[in-house]
Amino acid sequence: MANPAPENVAEKVEELQVNGVAHQEEEEDDDKVTPWEVTTTKATGIDYDKLIVKFGCRKLDDDVIARFERVTGHKACPMLRRGMFFAHRDFVAILELKEKGKPFYLYTGRGASSGSLHLGHLVPFIFTKWLQEVFDVPLVIQMTDDEKFLWKDMKVEDAKKMARENMKDIISVGFDPTKTFIFNDFDYMCPPFYENIVKIWKVVNANQARAIFGFTPEDCMGKAAFPAVEAAPCFASSFPHIFGERGRKNDIPCLIPCAIDQDPYFRMCRDVAPRLKAAKPSLIFSTFLPALQGAQTKMSASEPNTCIFLNDTPNQIKNKINKYAFSGGQQTVEEHRAKGGNCDVDISFQFLRFFLEDDAELARIREQYTKGELLSGELKARATLEVQKIIAEMKERRDKVTDETVNEFTKIRSLAYQY
Amino acid sequence: MANPAPENVAEKVEELQVNGVAHQEEEEDDDKVTPWEVTTTKATGIDYDKLIVKFGCRKLDDDVIARFERVTGHKACPMLRRGMFFAHRDFVAILELKEKGKPFYLYTGRGASSGSLHLGHLVPFIFTKWLQEVFDVPLVIQMTDDEKFLWKDMKVEDAKKMARENMKDIISVGFDPTKTFIFNDFDYMCPPFYENIVKIWKVVNANQARAIFGFTPEDCMGKAAFPAVEAAPCFASSFPHIFGERGRKNDIPCLIPCAIDQDPYFRMCRDVAPRLKAAKPSLIFSTFLPALQGAQTKMSASEPNTCIFLNDTPNQIKNKINKYAFSGGQQTVEEHRAKGGNCDVDISFQFLRFFLEDDAELARIREQYTKGELLSGELKARATLEVQKIIAEMKERRDKVTDETVNEFTKIRSLAYQY
Repeated sequence: MANPAPENVAEKVEELQVNGVAHQEEEEDDDKVTPWEVTTTKATGIDYDKLIVKFGCRKLDDDVIARFERVTGHKACPMLRRGMFFAHRDFVAILELKEKGKPFYLYTGRGASSGSLHLGHLVPFIFTKWLQEVFDVPLVIQMTDDEKFLWKDMKVEDAKKMARENMKDIISVGFDPTKTFIFNDFDYMCPPFYENIVKIWKVVNANQARAIFGFTPEDCMGKAAFPAVEAAPCFASSFPHIFGERGRKNDIPCLIPCAIDQDPYFRMCRDVAPRLKAAKPSLIFSTFLPALQGAQTKMSASEPNTCIFLNDTPNQIKNKINKYAFSGGQQTVEEHRAKGGNCDVDISFQFLRFFLEDDAELARIREQYTKGELLSGELKARATLEVQKIIAEMKERRDKVTDETVNEFTKIRSLAYQY
Repeated sequence: MANPAPENVAEKVEELQVNGVAHQEEEEDDDKVTPWEVTTTKATGIDYDKLIVKFGCRKLDDDVIARFERVTGHKACPMLRRGMFFAHRDFVAILELKEKGKPFYLYTGRGASSGSLHLGHLVPFIFTKWLQEVFDVPLVIQMTDDEKFLWKDMKVEDAKKMARENMKDIISVGFDPTKTFIFNDFDYMCPPFYENIVKIWKVVNANQARAIFGFTPEDCMGKAAFPAVEAAPCFASSFPHIFGERGRKNDIPCLIPCAIDQDPYFRMCRDVAPRLKAAKPSLIFSTFLPALQGAQTKMSASEPNTCIFLNDTPNQIKNKINKYAFSGGQQTVEEHRAKGGNCDVDISFQFLRFFLEDDAELARIREQYTKGELLSGELKARATLEVQKIIAEMKERRDKVTDETVNEFTKIRSLAYQY
């Protein structure tokens, strides 16, 4: 596969979008992808190829994946090789650093919302954990409790509490405390972090922020101030306890695995980085784990029936998938046997694409379901098993996570790397 | 003297102004008073009575001053009794707290600019030091190096360095390190401070901020974010090391002595305080020390010939006053003897109003100058003596201020008060 656009054209598009030109939504498609809303009318979900053009990022094509495998000596994980992580900005620059043994770090985050994480939340974290094992670099995880406080009707204390509870779920993905620093903005705010925030504030004007994020004059001051808070961890100098004196040069870039809806923050950050004499962050973007009801929306904690939660019991998982998971099968068994099912809209199949390790089995399931040999109930049962397995593993680790474990991850300390 | 408006009317005006209504500059006068600009065309300076109506604050009248003297047992200092501090918001509430022995604190600040402070900068600090001795309460002094970085073309390091240099000058006013905490935003930023900033961000929208501060969409994001940083020290919970657990309740109010141009920040803060369940700050406002060239502008460090600097030599002071201090006298000695001089526009006389302790001598000078008995050169010589004396005293203390002295004031520690 070729890149969607040659290098300089893509850069141009990126620039234009930072200046808001491409935000004037003249395109005919109805996909809505912002940090606050993800919807489409299509049962097959967001048109990600169009999104690549619209956002001005790059397709994560087979060449890049092959290069990744060559550089790291690791086979790409299912989410990578099956296009769940489908686009990037400057991911190749990170592979070059890896090749040369030069430093970089991973940065991801989450805006704490519900008490318990759902499967959709876990996707970037599961992938990030795998990436960290492959790259063996520091990882910083930002919990934007300040963002949640600003956007929602809640108290600071509750936003902080949610962040800490969510940290427990995130830790259960299996991160290594000697290599991972987790922080929530309300508790971490400190001079080096603030300095980067103010530097970003200085080089983006209100017009540009409005073009990128769509803020209105009725929005509170905090919404306009916040993007810099999410962008600042892209600069190593925000973490002196990890990167020490070397970090102050801001020449250690980060790679950000995240869902594509977070791109506006980092598009802005990539635009300002050169003006701050800092390395541009690289990004690798995931698609959204679809809601049980279908790929028109992503799983959303505010609508519990769209989600599998980390604290759902095996029985709840089974019932939710049976009851809600949108099926690509036919109305009757006879019709299904005759016409076959549609994997592209079938949510159970989509779950297997995200989480089933075995490529051969996934191909077999697709073939059998498409031919009508495999029934919807059978496909649901297979997806249920796989989801139950992931949740059970997560739960086993979750049961061991205490407040002390959280403190271990949030403590201001150096990690297992020297600079 | 009566208040310019009854209690509830003034409150109403204040409210309206927070919502920007009064900002629609329909008034005929040409006085411009914002945190970034102070000018008028009148040789007698800003019309402060009009400003009181425009801003919706109160005149600091004889009744309030009498009450101050009664409550504190101290005679009002020259700046207070001569109307250099001319207006207030809720100053009486502070006197009531003092009367009842209830806690409050003083908050003032400065946006570091030039290397050395000038006489105009010193006015609020000289007054604040006197107030602190009278009230015997904690004092916090904010250096807004972040503001200077955002508004000016300078590096963070330089803004911080200026803040530290300015601290030395401020300390030379004679503050007590056991009762005074000085901080610059870039170095002090911490979770309790940030939490108050975010809370303020949440309750003021971009429209309101624009109405209060006049920001445009071409202004950088940081300008819109900054007002909350200047407002946050109004809440005791921003300083846990000083106010401890009790501070978290935000029921310890502050009194802010400052020049009237800083009012927009605190008007906003007074509006948001109840929504944050925090005590409203009280304010006491000074007029501006006029520039040497006349009361049409205030002393401005960016135009050195308008100012007497803390590091000017006695000779430089003499020369500057002789050369630049606008005179209210007549063109020739004969004419002066015949017509007399005008004290209201004479800058040397204005300096004496600010700094000469002796009321009887000041009255005598006014009388003799108005009658033409005292010549301009003689008035200049008297003012020079007084300014030289203040600067000499300041300098004597300044020579003893080292980096260690600064560290003593900026150290995170409890002060000589318990809560």
